[in-house]
Amino acid sequence: MRKRTLSELAELCGATLEGDGDLPVRGPASLDEAGPEDISFLIEERHMARFEATRAGAVIVPRAFESPRDDLALLRSDEPNRAFSAVVLAFAEDFAGPDPEPGIHPTALVDATAVIGARTHVGPFCVIGPGARIGEDCVLHERVSVHDRAAVGDGTELHAGVVLRSRVRVGSRCALHPGVVVGADGFGYDPEPPTGWRKVPQCGGVAIGDDVEIGANTCIDRGRFGDTRIGNGVKIDNLVQIGHNCVVQDNALLCAQVGVAGSTTLGPWVVAGGGVGFNGHIHVGAGARVGGKGAVFHDLEGGVEYLGEPSRPRGEYLREITALRRLPELRTVVRQLEKRIAALEGGPE
Amino acid sequence: MRKRTLSELAELCGATLEGDGDLPVRGPASLDEAGPEDISFLIEERHMARFEATRAGAVIVPRAFESPRDDLALLRSDEPNRAFSAVVLAFAEDFAGPDPEPGIHPTALVDATAVIGARTHVGPFCVIGPGARIGEDCVLHERVSVHDRAAVGDGTELHAGVVLRSRVRVGSRCALHPGVVVGADGFGYDPEPPTGWRKVPQCGGVAIGDDVEIGANTCIDRGRFGDTRIGNGVKIDNLVQIGHNCVVQDNALLCAQVGVAGSTTLGPWVVAGGGVGFNGHIHVGAGARVGGKGAVFHDLEGGVEYLGEPSRPRGEYLREITALRRLPELRTVVRQLEKRIAALEGGPE
Amino acid sequence: MRKRTLSELAELCGATLEGDGDLPVRGPASLDEAGPEDISFLIEERHMARFEATRAGAVIVPRAFESPRDDLALLRSDEPNRAFSAVVLAFAEDFAGPDPEPGIHPTALVDATAVIGARTHVGPFCVIGPGARIGEDCVLHERVSVHDRAAVGDGTELHAGVVLRSRVRVGSRCALHPGVVVGADGFGYDPEPPTGWRKVPQCGGVAIGDDVEIGANTCIDRGRFGDTRIGNGVKIDNLVQIGHNCVVQDNALLCAQVGVAGSTTLGPWVVAGGGVGFNGHIHVGAGARVGGKGAVFHDLEGGVEYLGEPSRPRGEYLREITALRRLPELRTVVRQLEKRIAALEGGPE
Repeated sequence: MRKRTLSELAELCGATLEGDGDLPVRGPASLDEAGPEDISFLIEERHMARFEATRAGAVIVPRAFESPRDDLALLRSDEPNRAFSAVVLAFAEDFAGPDPEPGIHPTALVDATAVIGARTHVGPFCVIGPGARIGEDCVLHERVSVHDRAAVGDGTELHAGVVLRSRVRVGSRCALHPGVVVGADGFGYDPEPPTGWRKVPQCGGVAIGDDVEIGANTCIDRGRFGDTRIGNGVKIDNLVQIGHNCVVQDNALLCAQVGVAGSTTLGPWVVAGGGVGFNGHIHVGAGARVGGKGAVFHDLEGGVEYLGEPSRPRGEYLREITALRRLPELRTVVRQLEKRIAALEGGPE
Repeated sequence: MRKRTLSELAELCGATLEGDGDLPVRGPASLDEAGPEDISFLIEERHMARFEATRAGAVIVPRAFESPRDDLALLRSDEPNRAFSAVVLAFAEDFAGPDPEPGIHPTALVDATAVIGARTHVGPFCVIGPGARIGEDCVLHERVSVHDRAAVGDGTELHAGVVLRSRVRVGSRCALHPGVVVGADGFGYDPEPPTGWRKVPQCGGVAIGDDVEIGANTCIDRGRFGDTRIGNGVKIDNLVQIGHNCVVQDNALLCAQVGVAGSTTLGPWVVAGGGVGFNGHIHVGAGARVGGKGAVFHDLEGGVEYLGEPSRPRGEYLREITALRRLPELRTVVRQLEKRIAALEGGPE
Repeated sequence: MRKRTLSELAELCGATLEGDGDLPVRGPASLDEAGPEDISFLIEERHMARFEATRAGAVIVPRAFESPRDDLALLRSDEPNRAFSAVVLAFAEDFAGPDPEPGIHPTALVDATAVIGARTHVGPFCVIGPGARIGEDCVLHERVSVHDRAAVGDGTELHAGVVLRSRVRVGSRCALHPGVVVGADGFGYDPEPPTGWRKVPQCGGVAIGDDVEIGANTCIDRGRFGDTRIGNGVKIDNLVQIGHNCVVQDNALLCAQVGVAGSTTLGPWVVAGGGVGFNGHIHVGAGARVGGKGAVFHDLEGGVEYLGEPSRPRGEYLREITALRRLPELRTVVRQLEKRIAALEGGPE
């Protein structure tokens, strides 16, 4: 792993250096874990105690930061978060494994009618079905399935064990992490008691845009008819469930374990915290933000922050939670009032 | 994709045709997405605006529907939902990929003592263990594992990457979607501080009935001893967790991301919405319905609808939620009453 | 399956036998499922009705148990739960499949620079990357991936389809169940409207201690920089999500579907029930216990039990829930008080 000098890193991330520019830096680390050859960062004042205790050789800090220490180098930046990312990225090449070679691994099974870009890598034990189309500069790691008539754009990476079922379309420059399943049947049944449930056929597809990232073991079901649709720039974390015929619009961001029931639309730039559940057949407006573990049962207006279960506007939620916390006390007050009233009522006698 | 005439579709789904029976139909679509050669459907009045704006060539509607438009064909039906499913199904063959051939793919590894139906397909990279038994007319897609002494009934489909561990039994006509894991160890430990947790051995099995469907990446653990049991006709969505020694009785239906802790029994026809959690060692009565994101900590009586966290009967939940919403206001009222009482108390002086 | 005599089992689990020591026992079973050649157990009085109805040939009971029946054998024990586990374990060998042979399956792809213990089994279709190191006495079942520079300690079992990405380290005597993904990218993006989200590079690793068990389809993300860390003796159930740079300390126990957002620390012996969600960047003290479906938004003190959403100390939660349940009634009381006050106020006139 190649070391870089501190002045090299300062230039790279556009920061102002205070300290020894010749310091050799091994890599990025958190304030707690860093040693004398590591670079770390401080963004929020509340981590001041960690700054005071760090063994890091250098720390990226906000431009106007007032340092209580003069024994470590500082890199002052207007955007310390971004500056640190640039540093991390500089070292990332060293962390990354070897780039897979273009070509089809001899153990991969590729149907004769599939079309695969010449600069694309298809890894061991992959199965590519009839009529599948895979663009240029893609990487399919081991054990990836791309079923009949599915399509993948240019520069997309499919990690180990990803399954794209029939007719699923994935755009360009996407990354699907291990175990992602796209295009399993939607979940639809009509009750036929006493016999059982009759399956509603699920014949639609899934259309995923460009620059989409999908986390490990996440599932996106195919539409009943028509497509389940994921817009451009959407980011989806691990273990998320997207039901049939959902529409997740451009740049929505869904944290881990979110669930979206069938036929729901999430507008552009919607952000859902971890574990949020969305009811089916609802519409969430552009830029709405739903806090972790929320439960959304009805349409939500865009541009607003929601919290709680059921999710409601932040201010409303906080007022209710506070009131709930004081509820036992309120009951006591009411009981006392009752006595005072009784006394007043009895008083005249 | 073969087009069908509108009169052909009307006959197929038992609907009454109003309009041009010779209209060629390309396939089913939602009201919003349909074009002049697509057929759509309207069930609820609240989608009327979408009906008014649709470009569909034909729409399936309830028998007595009063149409505000005369420029598109109608198919009137007593059960428009079912009629539309019939239409979808008619086109489904065209959507479906080629049927896999019976036989064992040369890359599959089948133990010499396994017994596999002659009309069954075992796909690439499957691993079938000693003593495993797989019935007739099954389809095992690529990378399926059926471990030692596991058994699969007739006509069951196991999708890519499904894992059935030792001695798991799956019935006939089931479908297990990609990434399903059946028969991993149950989660049981006894605390032995300060050393750590001592594993409780998990030696039972899993018994799954007939006509069961299990969604992608769902996990069903083996029993501690005795079996975890899934009844006939049970439908389970994606990313569901079923703990050891649970009993899910006939025709229960569990939406995505439901979790059922160990040794809990869900009665027949129980329905659980997305993300519902069930405590361990409880019993949920036949036909109970638990709304999405619910949390069930105690036994529930059958035949009732439950909402909220903790889940309680629907009416109770709604009253409490309403009261909670008005709680800040109630606090204000109580504070005013307090003043008025103080005034009354002070009044006589 | 070899039968054992009852006296053999009594000795094995240190219990006092009352009844026929020559009784042949086929295996362990629950009170409800047991037959005359099965052994069962009773720990809690509340299962007395099941004891009274059982067909078991023998039952393990607490030392001082007063039996209402004399037609079945008893094994009296000071620790009946542990005694039963010992019995289960005794039969477990019979349940277990054949032990896999040491050696590398001919279909496995092992990079020339990987180092693998001579007594370790590498199953079919495994992919072992450059520089990977796997200790002695490990079992890698079929389709396991161990990517470049990843390391696995001695005696660890990796089940079907497990993926360890680059530079992930797993300790000794661990078990990772099917579909576990360790080391996928953490979920970090900076907003760059109107263009989209810019990915924050995820260059750290994952370090997992010894004696860790991880349930099926669980995901543990790599750090942004530095490692996501799982301590010794940690037990994690199925479908759990651990975000980047989390620290889960020794002997913490996380039930199914728990989610831990990035950079959160769970102290030693923390226990989280099914479906609990932890916010990012928080600290949960040693031995804290969070009840199922809880939502933890802030730091929690150790050694305390928490319930509800948001999770709060048990007593507080129970008081609030009770107060909430009586809230509609409280509203009625307040309305009546209002009338009585109005009467009092109007009274003098």
